[in-house]
Amino acid sequence: MEVELKNINPKFVELFTQTFAFTEEEFALFLSSFKCKTISKKDYYLRAGEVCKSKAYLNKGCARNFVLDEQGHERILFFPFEDWWLGDFDSYYSGNPGTNYIQMLEDSELLVISKEKFQKAEQEIPKLKQWYSSKMLRSAIASRNRIEEMKTLSAEERYLKLIEKQPHIFLRIPLQHIASYLNIEPQSLSRMRNRLTNKH
Amino acid sequence: MEVELKNINPKFVELFTQTFAFTEEEFALFLSSFKCKTISKKDYYLRAGEVCKSKAYLNKGCARNFVLDEQGHERILFFPFEDWWLGDFDSYYSGNPGTNYIQMLEDSELLVISKEKFQKAEQEIPKLKQWYSSKMLRSAIASRNRIEEMKTLSAEERYLKLIEKQPHIFLRIPLQHIASYLNIEPQSLSRMRNRLTNKH
Repeated sequence: MEVELKNINPKFVELFTQTFAFTEEEFALFLSSFKCKTISKKDYYLRAGEVCKSKAYLNKGCARNFVLDEQGHERILFFPFEDWWLGDFDSYYSGNPGTNYIQMLEDSELLVISKEKFQKAEQEIPKLKQWYSSKMLRSAIASRNRIEEMKTLSAEERYLKLIEKQPHIFLRIPLQHIASYLNIEPQSLSRMRNRLTNKH
Repeated sequence: MEVELKNINPKFVELFTQTFAFTEEEFALFLSSFKCKTISKKDYYLRAGEVCKSKAYLNKGCARNFVLDEQGHERILFFPFEDWWLGDFDSYYSGNPGTNYIQMLEDSELLVISKEKFQKAEQEIPKLKQWYSSKMLRSAIASRNRIEEMKTLSAEERYLKLIEKQPHIFLRIPLQHIASYLNIEPQSLSRMRNRLTNKH
């Protein structure tokens, strides 16, 4: 399905036309490289074992990225919401099968660009490289910070950090997924919420 | 201290002159932006609370990057060896005081380039941007993989992964630091090593 401008998240338009100053032609060219894809709640954008061959802008909806541990338990890495980009970096660049599952937690709408089309767009629009390079930098910093958090914060501190960064998360993500993200049991999370809510 | 070509790790020279095809002039210009700095074992390149204002290539030696948790315990994030770049990303880009300590575990030699000189070099040598962009990408992937490992692997599996990736680590890094990296007690690491060694 072709992408229609009126349906696009304004943050996407602003990012490329303002922050990275794409001309009208450049933006139109870039946009024409995307396909719109809808995925129903509980369906997958990507599964472990598949090769990730595209980047996808989450125009509407939310998802969970998870991996399986050696015992086959799901371990949630993060929750993408609107204005995130979905994919499995390592698989995308290496061409090897990935380890990430990306499952939609709401009926969602993605703007998908294939690896080939992205590379072509990068050649035609040099500003796209600038964006991607700054995105990689921010992604590297965010991941480093996440590692620090995992190393230094207790479950309660990570819970407080989560609601500080994504205050509406409990309205959209089921409790058991948030517990998995925090590496605690759902019962512990419920108790923690009650205790912290009663404090205030 | 100025940097002398004969003392530089061949990987540094190869990276820029071959992989990124700097001309002789570009490489000489780039190299002249660095200062050589020696730091004794146990001394620090960076401390939490300081603003990171330079990038440093670890020409010789090794270090540990750590942060403090809320209780003031040291939590080791990784062990840089020769051919790594040292710094606190987030602080370098934000200009805010950082959270990382970088302490040398051997008498070490660094090639240090200030933020200003690096920015100037990037303007004069566009290929430098390509290198940095690919480095950020690899760094983002490595950090994502590390988060996955922390989420999915047991201490024993992380131990095996560590010696697979850095086989000489036990020859250069004290046991208690490796235990801290793996989030286990030094005694547990000793027992694990004995058990796994006797298996083979």
